[in-house]
Amino acid sequence: MNIAILGTGFIARFYADALQSQRRKDVVRVAYSRNEARAKKFADDYHLPYYFTDINEAVSHPETDVVVIALPNNLHEEAVLACVKAKKHVLCTKPLGRTAAEAKRMLEAVENAGVFGGYLEDLCYTPKFLKSCESIRAGSIGRILWAKSRETHPGPHSEWFWDKAQSGGGAIIDLGCHCVEISRNFIGKNTRPIEVMCWADTQVHPIEAEDHAIGLVKYADGAIGQFEVSWAFRGGMDLRDEVMGTEGTIWLNGFLRTGFEMFSTGKGGYVAEKSETDSGWLFPVGDEVHDLGYSNMFTDMFDAIEANRQPRESFYDGYIVNCILDAAYLSVKTRAWEPVKIDDWRGNDIAATTSHFINYDNEHYLIKEEILPDGKKILILKHQQTGEVTRKQS
Amino acid sequence: MNIAILGTGFIARFYADALQSQRRKDVVRVAYSRNEARAKKFADDYHLPYYFTDINEAVSHPETDVVVIALPNNLHEEAVLACVKAKKHVLCTKPLGRTAAEAKRMLEAVENAGVFGGYLEDLCYTPKFLKSCESIRAGSIGRILWAKSRETHPGPHSEWFWDKAQSGGGAIIDLGCHCVEISRNFIGKNTRPIEVMCWADTQVHPIEAEDHAIGLVKYADGAIGQFEVSWAFRGGMDLRDEVMGTEGTIWLNGFLRTGFEMFSTGKGGYVAEKSETDSGWLFPVGDEVHDLGYSNMFTDMFDAIEANRQPRESFYDGYIVNCILDAAYLSVKTRAWEPVKIDDWRGNDIAATTSHFINYDNEHYLIKEEILPDGKKILILKHQQTGEVTRKQS
Amino acid sequence: MNIAILGTGFIARFYADALQSQRRKDVVRVAYSRNEARAKKFADDYHLPYYFTDINEAVSHPETDVVVIALPNNLHEEAVLACVKAKKHVLCTKPLGRTAAEAKRMLEAVENAGVFGGYLEDLCYTPKFLKSCESIRAGSIGRILWAKSRETHPGPHSEWFWDKAQSGGGAIIDLGCHCVEISRNFIGKNTRPIEVMCWADTQVHPIEAEDHAIGLVKYADGAIGQFEVSWAFRGGMDLRDEVMGTEGTIWLNGFLRTGFEMFSTGKGGYVAEKSETDSGWLFPVGDEVHDLGYSNMFTDMFDAIEANRQPRESFYDGYIVNCILDAAYLSVKTRAWEPVKIDDWRGNDIAATTSHFINYDNEHYLIKEEILPDGKKILILKHQQTGEVTRKQS
Amino acid sequence: MNIAILGTGFIARFYADALQSQRRKDVVRVAYSRNEARAKKFADDYHLPYYFTDINEAVSHPETDVVVIALPNNLHEEAVLACVKAKKHVLCTKPLGRTAAEAKRMLEAVENAGVFGGYLEDLCYTPKFLKSCESIRAGSIGRILWAKSRETHPGPHSEWFWDKAQSGGGAIIDLGCHCVEISRNFIGKNTRPIEVMCWADTQVHPIEAEDHAIGLVKYADGAIGQFEVSWAFRGGMDLRDEVMGTEGTIWLNGFLRTGFEMFSTGKGGYVAEKSETDSGWLFPVGDEVHDLGYSNMFTDMFDAIEANRQPRESFYDGYIVNCILDAAYLSVKTRAWEPVKIDDWRGNDIAATTSHFINYDNEHYLIKEEILPDGKKILILKHQQTGEVTRKQS
Repeated sequence: MNIAILGTGFIARFYADALQSQRRKDVVRVAYSRNEARAKKFADDYHLPYYFTDINEAVSHPETDVVVIALPNNLHEEAVLACVKAKKHVLCTKPLGRTAAEAKRMLEAVENAGVFGGYLEDLCYTPKFLKSCESIRAGSIGRILWAKSRETHPGPHSEWFWDKAQSGGGAIIDLGCHCVEISRNFIGKNTRPIEVMCWADTQVHPIEAEDHAIGLVKYADGAIGQFEVSWAFRGGMDLRDEVMGTEGTIWLNGFLRTGFEMFSTGKGGYVAEKSETDSGWLFPVGDEVHDLGYSNMFTDMFDAIEANRQPRESFYDGYIVNCILDAAYLSVKTRAWEPVKIDDWRGNDIAATTSHFINYDNEHYLIKEEILPDGKKILILKHQQTGEVTRKQS
Repeated sequence: MNIAILGTGFIARFYADALQSQRRKDVVRVAYSRNEARAKKFADDYHLPYYFTDINEAVSHPETDVVVIALPNNLHEEAVLACVKAKKHVLCTKPLGRTAAEAKRMLEAVENAGVFGGYLEDLCYTPKFLKSCESIRAGSIGRILWAKSRETHPGPHSEWFWDKAQSGGGAIIDLGCHCVEISRNFIGKNTRPIEVMCWADTQVHPIEAEDHAIGLVKYADGAIGQFEVSWAFRGGMDLRDEVMGTEGTIWLNGFLRTGFEMFSTGKGGYVAEKSETDSGWLFPVGDEVHDLGYSNMFTDMFDAIEANRQPRESFYDGYIVNCILDAAYLSVKTRAWEPVKIDDWRGNDIAATTSHFINYDNEHYLIKEEILPDGKKILILKHQQTGEVTRKQS
Repeated sequence: MNIAILGTGFIARFYADALQSQRRKDVVRVAYSRNEARAKKFADDYHLPYYFTDINEAVSHPETDVVVIALPNNLHEEAVLACVKAKKHVLCTKPLGRTAAEAKRMLEAVENAGVFGGYLEDLCYTPKFLKSCESIRAGSIGRILWAKSRETHPGPHSEWFWDKAQSGGGAIIDLGCHCVEISRNFIGKNTRPIEVMCWADTQVHPIEAEDHAIGLVKYADGAIGQFEVSWAFRGGMDLRDEVMGTEGTIWLNGFLRTGFEMFSTGKGGYVAEKSETDSGWLFPVGDEVHDLGYSNMFTDMFDAIEANRQPRESFYDGYIVNCILDAAYLSVKTRAWEPVKIDDWRGNDIAATTSHFINYDNEHYLIKEEILPDGKKILILKHQQTGEVTRKQS
Repeated sequence: MNIAILGTGFIARFYADALQSQRRKDVVRVAYSRNEARAKKFADDYHLPYYFTDINEAVSHPETDVVVIALPNNLHEEAVLACVKAKKHVLCTKPLGRTAAEAKRMLEAVENAGVFGGYLEDLCYTPKFLKSCESIRAGSIGRILWAKSRETHPGPHSEWFWDKAQSGGGAIIDLGCHCVEISRNFIGKNTRPIEVMCWADTQVHPIEAEDHAIGLVKYADGAIGQFEVSWAFRGGMDLRDEVMGTEGTIWLNGFLRTGFEMFSTGKGGYVAEKSETDSGWLFPVGDEVHDLGYSNMFTDMFDAIEANRQPRESFYDGYIVNCILDAAYLSVKTRAWEPVKIDDWRGNDIAATTSHFINYDNEHYLIKEEILPDGKKILILKHQQTGEVTRKQS
């Protein structure tokens, strides 16, 4: 397939690098930027035959089969509408919208037009993440109780992120969108997110938006999603997920501790991205394009278009993420749990958690089995009527 | 000094092990249990000359200089009062009380009697923790923004923990007391804890109390303490602290990843405490008594008694922890931020965070310095009046 | 390009998986096995249009542009000669030969025929390894002093490995070929390997060949390569490299500690390859095909064929590895350092290490600068004539 | 007991710190240095009542019960003889001698005099090491195949180390003595070390002695000890042990990766010992005195004196280490395996490894059980007469 990329910044380059790696058969042909010099430079750097400063020309070009949107948040909707108008498939970077309302309009636009709407949520395509999800679905860690995702770093590099009007917010909209969708995948996408409690503050940077936030998302089955996001972290980019299940635990480290450790006096210059330093102990990532999920993401997107199926991450997922983030922002203001408002819920509507208690006999629940240091096993039991807790030799 | 230990369970044995290790000059002489057989066995195991089933006999014994309370939570107050009556120094296990009211009565009792009141918060004495605090005080990571402490495991071994009447609660009172005091040390004990937001649930075990909770504690200088506690974690005992400061980060792992890794087919039997298994990959701790802080804790306590000074962790600290936990439990019910009520605040009363913004020139704040891949440095600036965000070549 | 794969075992499947991933434009079309059922199954599994049990038919098929040899060690030479006869490009799995003599014949065959000879040394293409080499070339860790590579696991899965006649040896030929080439890349391929000292033993398995070996390879510039290989390791597949340079250190972990950690009670079945267990703490790899280097390896090979250039790993490299391994096997027997015999050396012929000593002044070398705990700096010096060691305040 | 410390340098301070920590009942009373100012300063710093510049005065002082030798290597023998003359118990730092001959004279002197001879091998007393040894003795990892110990750093701080006449050698004698004794403990002290192969070179520093060495020590039961030592490592002090057994693996990290990780911009000054830097990612150790084994070491020594038993590490162990290191130095010169000459062997004299092969049936050995990805189990067998390797469905 032939691809047009809208935007020429940091993320556009990541996308182009991914698309041009490993002898892929799909080809980037068209670049677009509002700024001609940047459009030209991007086309030159990646050897693309065409570049434009008119978005409609780029999108409607005969060699454009699929459009990749890599623009600031405030320009997503306009770009999606241009694709819809030209009846081209569209893959949009994260977050889909700045608000759920914006995201919903984009979702409806692609669905009404019958074009493909892929949500470029790369961190839901990292190799570790995909294998974790598969393993969780196979039952390896049991029922999910808690799924935390953390993304923190010292702050973005492009100025538009810091301007709330363009970005729609701070660390929550920028990084929280990743974390929310990661937790949602772990817990199960058919499980409804019910309510959100969020703390946020502007602790360090002179900006309107938040540079640090922590949020809890409660799901219909009692599971808890947690996001930890910051633009005030020192030490590089901290990218970690943790999941607790009734039968196990998963810990993923996506960036700072991946088995690549290096000490340097600094004579070699740049060695590790976002590391804040080129000397001392450094922790590079082997292959960012692959390890951050870009390769698997585009493979899924193009495979899905060809197979006429939904991708793992669709515009609908982007919309749900925005619904959750809207609730988070509201909770920061009201300082209370806020319901997640989803006008168009397509998953299950299961009720609150049913009892998972284990009966020991007709009268007792089993609280815990314990092996004592001397090898003996004891049981801690609770009487179902009286509530009395007792110990029993096993 | 001569020591009496009240209680003969798991924690009493940890205390006795610590006190009898490394050729210490202070000597345990007296044991007490409500159960005579247990009292006798404890005295035999540790070669103690005296044991009692009457708490007043144990406390008032002429060879008792200092009393160590290692009893269930609901028996702390009675034991403290017995010590006060006998005018003996008292060291009480954590949590001090089940509620702030209970803790306050104990605090006032020791202060009025003029006896020493040490709070046995071992995790605030681990070697890693002490060195971290010292380094933070020296400025190594700047102003503290966030201090998280996590303690999770599959649940306690003694039945009284599971009975809310005796314990006063679940994972929050049992584990949260550690985490709250750890965060408080990182942030600074003179900084007032203002309010708490807490989620808790009973996700797995058939009990009245919570078996999983996550709480945020906001401090007067804008710093956030976070606790993550659970009795539903699988994989051993997860003991980790993370601190973010404006100039750095600290990550401490207290148990599962300390540089001791072992694979075994299981032929050797027991090798790692709380590991849930004796085969596969195991992560033992080298020396629990020392690494969990017991050695340094008792050294500080006896040094403090001799020097007639306060220990690092006193009854007052135990009381503050209970004030914070009271707010956490209330927040679980009200589903909102709850103020921390401290009748007797002895720290600073600083106002909310003052501005930490960095001026770039008379008109602009500096948002961020960025080094581009080509080595050029750019500055992202914000106009102080208009709020406009701009980029500038450095 | 169209590809024929010779062999249908474990490694052939890895190759096919890599070649069919990520929407690559090069296509596997032809399968070959000595066993028809296996050839058919392989073709079915990977949707290949052709399969053969006659190697010449497979190689000379009109839709075969490039041949991938994935056969047991004793069949490499015959397969290479078949490719040469058919004038097809050939990519051969590791080790190239069982001996240097065998490897040299294959090298000469492809060179005389003018076909491409790629050496499928996947572990020299892992993302971490490529980034490390790049960084070392940029000077990040200075002059290389020591480069160790370790590959150990509980032993191979196919029976032919255990039969010395087919394999040519044990852990040295099977795993040492990786480690030797990894060290050689770190130290520099133009630097001549001079001599080898190797210990090997059959410690566990009832076989003729060695199941554990440790070897040292001395290079012309004084650097030392080290390999640690075993078929008797318990705990999975241990894949680690360590490099010491005058200005830094690199540690790579390729398998067991890559930031993916999982505890499971085992309810989900299989979760981690070669882990020896499905319960307890497990350490899966996110994407073996990519993380073990297969993706980058094939990309380099096909790019090199198109660009008519040498790949990073060529038949010549395979030949040099065999020369080093021949010396290692001889050293095991003679129990002494054995010279590496290379009839066809194409790199530099630099002399032994020249002096790297640092002059402090006309009379003294600088041994070391030391910063004392009080912040003072001292210098440790050595007199160039007398050899006297002295300390000097800096 | 009352203690005299001979020497006032780096290691003497470590010893004094350990002896004065944790309210120990044994007391340092006497200091000795050849230099009066240093003796006085040491006595002042540690509040000791007596200090001397005459070794015999220090040793024979009435308040000296036990002498701790913390002097350069070339002064050990003289100091031991002074203790023997005064009939005082003696604890000597590592290495015991510069050669086996020197060590043997010291061993015989204490044994003939009937005084206690403790060998201060702290790294054989670290909490992780002690727990590992205990677990290995219980069978957790089966029969030991290989035990490697590594100690590398950028070089010692005191000038006498760099002068071969005083130190007796370079990294081998300084660091190898630790590593050899660590491996020996893992493998079993009653198992005879047979022969040594060692490479050494002076790669970086302008000294006569070696600054980098790697050695293999073969034991009578077929196990291999390995030491890796260097004064040319960059990145701090790398202290790691690895053990392979037939049933498992142990990995210990003693310094750089112990679960204490810190990023700092450097505003706080000194935070981690031997880290080469105060900014970037730092890896401090919680409590060096305890974690490096000093606490347990002195506890064992004084307990042993009181109980009139041998300590874990005695002068005899120091002598065996010197025998092994003598063979290592000889091997560096002869470039071949050299026998370990032990005039006074007190362990077992077991013959070479007996067969450990597992019989599958009367005709076959079992090479390996393999679980295939489809869950089927296969067996790889070897015919005991023909040597043929076959596969069998299990």
